[in-house]
Amino acid sequence: MKITAIHETVVPISSDIRNAFIDFSRMTVSVVAVVTDVKRGGKRVIGYGFNSNGRYAQSGLLRERFIPRLMGVDSRTLLNDAGDNLDPHRIWACMMANEKPGGHGERSVAVGVIDMAVWDAVAKIERKPLYRLLAERYRGGSADDQVFVYAAGGYYYPGKDLSALQDEMKKYLDLGYTVVKMKIGGASLADDLKRIEAVIKTAGSGKHVAVDANGRFDLRTAVEYARALRPYGLFWYEEPGDPLDFALQAELARHYDGAMATGENLFSMQDARNLIRHGGMRAERDWLQFDCALSYGLVEYLRTLEMLKQHAWSPRRCIPHGGHQMSLNIAAGLGLGGNESYPDVFQPFGGFADNMPVENSHVRMPDAPGIGFEAKANLYAVMRNLAAG
Amino acid sequence: MKITAIHETVVPISSDIRNAFIDFSRMTVSVVAVVTDVKRGGKRVIGYGFNSNGRYAQSGLLRERFIPRLMGVDSRTLLNDAGDNLDPHRIWACMMANEKPGGHGERSVAVGVIDMAVWDAVAKIERKPLYRLLAERYRGGSADDQVFVYAAGGYYYPGKDLSALQDEMKKYLDLGYTVVKMKIGGASLADDLKRIEAVIKTAGSGKHVAVDANGRFDLRTAVEYARALRPYGLFWYEEPGDPLDFALQAELARHYDGAMATGENLFSMQDARNLIRHGGMRAERDWLQFDCALSYGLVEYLRTLEMLKQHAWSPRRCIPHGGHQMSLNIAAGLGLGGNESYPDVFQPFGGFADNMPVENSHVRMPDAPGIGFEAKANLYAVMRNLAAG
Repeated sequence: MKITAIHETVVPISSDIRNAFIDFSRMTVSVVAVVTDVKRGGKRVIGYGFNSNGRYAQSGLLRERFIPRLMGVDSRTLLNDAGDNLDPHRIWACMMANEKPGGHGERSVAVGVIDMAVWDAVAKIERKPLYRLLAERYRGGSADDQVFVYAAGGYYYPGKDLSALQDEMKKYLDLGYTVVKMKIGGASLADDLKRIEAVIKTAGSGKHVAVDANGRFDLRTAVEYARALRPYGLFWYEEPGDPLDFALQAELARHYDGAMATGENLFSMQDARNLIRHGGMRAERDWLQFDCALSYGLVEYLRTLEMLKQHAWSPRRCIPHGGHQMSLNIAAGLGLGGNESYPDVFQPFGGFADNMPVENSHVRMPDAPGIGFEAKANLYAVMRNLAAG
Repeated sequence: MKITAIHETVVPISSDIRNAFIDFSRMTVSVVAVVTDVKRGGKRVIGYGFNSNGRYAQSGLLRERFIPRLMGVDSRTLLNDAGDNLDPHRIWACMMANEKPGGHGERSVAVGVIDMAVWDAVAKIERKPLYRLLAERYRGGSADDQVFVYAAGGYYYPGKDLSALQDEMKKYLDLGYTVVKMKIGGASLADDLKRIEAVIKTAGSGKHVAVDANGRFDLRTAVEYARALRPYGLFWYEEPGDPLDFALQAELARHYDGAMATGENLFSMQDARNLIRHGGMRAERDWLQFDCALSYGLVEYLRTLEMLKQHAWSPRRCIPHGGHQMSLNIAAGLGLGGNESYPDVFQPFGGFADNMPVENSHVRMPDAPGIGFEAKANLYAVMRNLAAG
């Protein structure tokens, strides 16, 4: 068997939302199709992948380096020992040949997109949902049958007032979510507190509300917010400072005894390890949001989980950024704490299988082989076009 | 005045050399030309830039994001207050609009290439060599008239034996260098020690020899090498472990009291700051090798120098990676400790102005306006073609 082609394209996911750091008016996503010569159910197996929101499509790197490397080697070197399926670890090593260490950004997205497609193909070839395959390979077989999800929204956008914000959150609650997340740091502290109080009123209490500063604050502002947020007993206080300012994070922990969350902008095991080593994160209380689709894929995420284990962190403390089905499979298969969900934005990439309602902030897994893209009609429509082209 | 066009192209700098981590057989470099409508000496001013070796060309990111952003804004927003020259800081901010924090790789190269070209144009418009302009703007006017340089080579390549290695080093000494650098970590410790002793024999003593492991070692191997290297009294022991493994670097400092050097694979002020905060580097003894051409350019390098100042590190402890004229100008203008030089490889990008011999391991600066590319014939030939196209 072999990979016969890898297609890639760019899809806009622009919107007029804004967080404290960027607007999303020109946001794009790469979508790839890894086409194999294996047939299942009479059709050739095609694995699909894409990157999460927040970083951009990676056409250049995919075309200049990563796709040519995979298509340029003896295809047998990309297979497992039995020669009957792709080997994601060997494929990863091939993509990263002659890449220097350090500098983990952009290429981590390009590799992550292909890695996602490879795992989709691998599970399809084994005729299993990916989460079951992962549970079998790495967790002695036991998979979670449902995954905690929270609704991420509450962005800033032009003309949005408090009642519009409350309406948005009310909709998430009506959809079955019990925890909602909103942006902070794009307004004054006083205005943000009004927004937070409005959302708490809708959600019932602070423990149902998470807030996200998207790395905007310096230490002084982060501490100012921490003091103001503390009485609310929030679900978490996310990414207060620059994602690489581990000293800020560690110092902030001395001023905030509620849960904190960060990690969506750390794109390698090494960067994640530095957060654990130097960031003062508390293993019994805080949350880690590393997103494989931006971070060299699941092959690297397995290294990150192993690193966490060595530092006595449970995988249950991981709730990845990104709201995509890949992390949902990892969560169910490897026993993470949950997954982000964007009920409203980043369509068709956000969200999970159709006809899988969220109940009590948990979502069940579809039975489809692979990651489950075929069970999400609007997303599969984009992907199917790519493979045809 | 305004930027009328930005051209970019990819130039191969492939060779059969190898360090402990990668081979360079498919290495490429981006070259850009920032064309203005300003005339000097009867010709329009064009600024040129390129990235250093070790990372790849960035056509994709340049075309997808950074060039369109600059060409898509009101050109007046990219100028200084007087409106008579480009403002590198405003141009930087425009390029980085809607880029999330963290993930400093690849895009740091793309931005660095354009930043270099912008500074070249700015200095040409002011009719000054860049190093003089930098000394005036940031150092009260006093520039160094010569810069320490060392000869980097000693790569592994097929068929190279000890006498070939010695011949290479002998050539560097004959060219006027007193310090030479060689690769380690691509062979066994025993073989590397033979190589090092051969080079020491040629160079006269260990203090004239630096060794570079290119991030290859785990802690145990790094310590093993440290113990073996210590008696030689080397010029420095470079990048023993993964560039982001600050804990390894800090631990290694307890086993090696000679000088160490690292930083070429840290591509932002934030990453550099983490090395200073967590890496156990010793301000009186160790060396920092951040390379602006891979790290968002001089605008970011100025932030790194400011960060170093706050941590009581002198700019004299900086000897940038890359061996290019941009860092040579920064070294002379801002008082760094020196600059890398590749007498043999990465041509035409490595090396400095023609007819500027190295004397006692120092090189003088040409009088040409800008970075001085026009004074290096083989490099300018590549650049001139690009602007014409």
